[in-house]
Amino acid sequence: MSMQDVYDWIDANADECVRDLQRFVQQPSISAQNVGLRECATLVREMMHADGLPAEFHELDEGPPVVFGHLEAKKPSKTILCYSHYDVQPPEPLDEWTHGGPWSGEIVDGVMYGRGSTDNKSGVLAFNKAAKAFLQVRGEVPVNLKFLIEGEEEIGSPNLAAWAEKNEELLKADGMHCLDGSMETGTQVPDVSLGLKSVLFVELIARGAKMDVHSLNFPLVESPVWELVWALNTILDRDRKILVEGWEEGIWQLGPDDEQQLTDKAARVDLNALKEEWGISEFALGRDGVDAIRARTYEPTANIQGMIAGYTGPGRKTIIPNEARVRMDFRLIPNIQPADAIRKLKAHLEKHGFGHIEVQAFDGAEPPYKISVKEDISQAIIAAATEVYGELPVVNGVSAEGAILRHVWIPCVLTGFANPGANLHAPDENIRVDRYLQGIKYAAAIMEHFGRT
Amino acid sequence: MSMQDVYDWIDANADECVRDLQRFVQQPSISAQNVGLRECATLVREMMHADGLPAEFHELDEGPPVVFGHLEAKKPSKTILCYSHYDVQPPEPLDEWTHGGPWSGEIVDGVMYGRGSTDNKSGVLAFNKAAKAFLQVRGEVPVNLKFLIEGEEEIGSPNLAAWAEKNEELLKADGMHCLDGSMETGTQVPDVSLGLKSVLFVELIARGAKMDVHSLNFPLVESPVWELVWALNTILDRDRKILVEGWEEGIWQLGPDDEQQLTDKAARVDLNALKEEWGISEFALGRDGVDAIRARTYEPTANIQGMIAGYTGPGRKTIIPNEARVRMDFRLIPNIQPADAIRKLKAHLEKHGFGHIEVQAFDGAEPPYKISVKEDISQAIIAAATEVYGELPVVNGVSAEGAILRHVWIPCVLTGFANPGANLHAPDENIRVDRYLQGIKYAAAIMEHFGRT
Repeated sequence: MSMQDVYDWIDANADECVRDLQRFVQQPSISAQNVGLRECATLVREMMHADGLPAEFHELDEGPPVVFGHLEAKKPSKTILCYSHYDVQPPEPLDEWTHGGPWSGEIVDGVMYGRGSTDNKSGVLAFNKAAKAFLQVRGEVPVNLKFLIEGEEEIGSPNLAAWAEKNEELLKADGMHCLDGSMETGTQVPDVSLGLKSVLFVELIARGAKMDVHSLNFPLVESPVWELVWALNTILDRDRKILVEGWEEGIWQLGPDDEQQLTDKAARVDLNALKEEWGISEFALGRDGVDAIRARTYEPTANIQGMIAGYTGPGRKTIIPNEARVRMDFRLIPNIQPADAIRKLKAHLEKHGFGHIEVQAFDGAEPPYKISVKEDISQAIIAAATEVYGELPVVNGVSAEGAILRHVWIPCVLTGFANPGANLHAPDENIRVDRYLQGIKYAAAIMEHFGRT
Repeated sequence: MSMQDVYDWIDANADECVRDLQRFVQQPSISAQNVGLRECATLVREMMHADGLPAEFHELDEGPPVVFGHLEAKKPSKTILCYSHYDVQPPEPLDEWTHGGPWSGEIVDGVMYGRGSTDNKSGVLAFNKAAKAFLQVRGEVPVNLKFLIEGEEEIGSPNLAAWAEKNEELLKADGMHCLDGSMETGTQVPDVSLGLKSVLFVELIARGAKMDVHSLNFPLVESPVWELVWALNTILDRDRKILVEGWEEGIWQLGPDDEQQLTDKAARVDLNALKEEWGISEFALGRDGVDAIRARTYEPTANIQGMIAGYTGPGRKTIIPNEARVRMDFRLIPNIQPADAIRKLKAHLEKHGFGHIEVQAFDGAEPPYKISVKEDISQAIIAAATEVYGELPVVNGVSAEGAILRHVWIPCVLTGFANPGANLHAPDENIRVDRYLQGIKYAAAIMEHFGRT
């Protein structure tokens, strides 16, 4: 069935779609600062009701409510879970905003400005308005829809997993997606990510004497900073191989589809633009082309965010620092579980004689996931993107951005329609109005295509 | 010949010795702040003339003058060079001084307070008053004496080497010593150091992209902090062995005398007091006893004073830091030349693929030195200390403290008479008046004993 009728409704009702997004952006909803969250949830519920969609509050243990709605198709259908969030990042620094500041929703030259305009209020409304279009034009939606709109995504969804665990039945679906992604710089088509790396934050702390000791005593005193250097050296080698025993156990093995995606992507993105942006003449280890894309997508990483010990000011200070700290982020690739990774790291340090180094692993690491391009949800989204954008999307095996509901296993795709330069998490966040309206069509096409599978 | 006559003169003229030290302490002479230096040099010259000693100014390229005097014995004799300095450390923090502040010279309960009272104005006067005592009592000194009193020791003697190079004849001597040392905590006898480690300050700087890059790009971007970790790991192993090729070339080989000194010292010092002070249960690598003393004295070291890279504040920052720095001090043991050490370190980094890491070596590293306990100057000082203090001094193969004139090779000993708790370089620097008078006798006994060799 052609989608033209639905697209026509969206075009004809563009003013309503844009006005609702403005109203939505004008309602602050900063999860990190606990500002306006319940008000914003209420607004979401109210707008959904006005659009003829079901929506009710689900209270979490703490924090603002999840807005949940379940809309069934008339004929027996699969179910797609539409995940989005109504909270936004803090708007600071305020003086770097133009166009009336973070809560204006002002439109200038076809671009709407405001915190949340891209991330993720336009995503919320893309789902809602797409569903409304179907109801208005056809009197039914092409697939069962579940809407899950949470208010703590930007702070790592601290209460969502516990709620999900108690609501497995409610969450059951055949596919899940969110429109929290974007377009790769240099392309005009959505990124489609068939999985997500997980970010594991770890701080290692080595301690020594009860105070900094004069360095003439070096032969007699443990040096925490040297201990940390030696310990780190056992974790990652210069070929960027993680040496922790069993780290890659259960790791996703690339198949022909994955290789094909890498080849396709390498043909479409301009890696030299990245080198120029970063001011480097070549990538690490001389990687380039499809190898660079493969490494960036699938390599488990052990980054050092920061390291500090002792005295680093002007001049000299002849001390053996009694404490040294290193802050790391490990990117876990599918299907390495964060809890396993922490356990393996601790066992590794112990085994190599660094059991005295304290390991602080930060809570809230989402497990990574990966689905096949052959999944119905993958195929539906690729078909929808091709239809709406006129060419194939950029398909990523795994993405490193965002966090998503992962208690209940549902094949899940991250994609998005935001224009490059949308400044999400930064001042002057914005969305091109035409991209937003196109995004609603994209959401509608996904529903349609998934309904056909 | 008994020294009693000379000691008696010192006791009888204690008031004069103490008054001169007060007057000397009351004249500020802060080399780091260029305060009062020429005035202090003038006072030194004036006091030497009043004591019947030769003294004249030698102007350096920059900075305050060296005060130099040459006093010959009547009979043909060896020559001993008495090195000392009239400049002092900055007195800050001023509000932590009691007893009238840093320039009072006030005596309370037999202790004189003031900056320089120990380091090194009492040392200067110990030489002068000892020589005066000989002249007064015997009409001659027992050995040819050269006095070299400089004014920039506390800032690393930046102009002295160039002057020494032009004045080799003037500096010629059979032995050299200075009284800039002290007593080991827990003993009441002077430390006698037959050499000095050198401290080589080095900063290593690794640089990467032109800005911090998001850590999801880790597979594509060089990580300067990892580069530094890997580079450091090639420099020192966990057994504290420096791995730089040829680092120990020309290193002092311990002989039976050196081993004997270590055994003697181990029998006299309380290493558990050090552990308690530092709050540790054991020394690094389980060292103890004579092994600990040997390592502390003779092991070349590669200490990390400080290290910094990226973000280390609260929370997380998913960046690959584009710069990392480590500040090190290498203690060079005899007879490793600092310039050779820097060259070897650079070659080592280059060879191991870290040639891109910048090596900043700080100027002003004095070469280390080491003399035999059998040298006349060593024997004279040990005999003098035994005579004046009633027991053998603690003899160190090498000391790690202080800096000394080293352009012209003269067997040189560092020793001292300051009481433990003299707070040198700290507020309430002080010297026990009885220790000061004993120090004058020590200086006299050294002259006498060296004259006999």
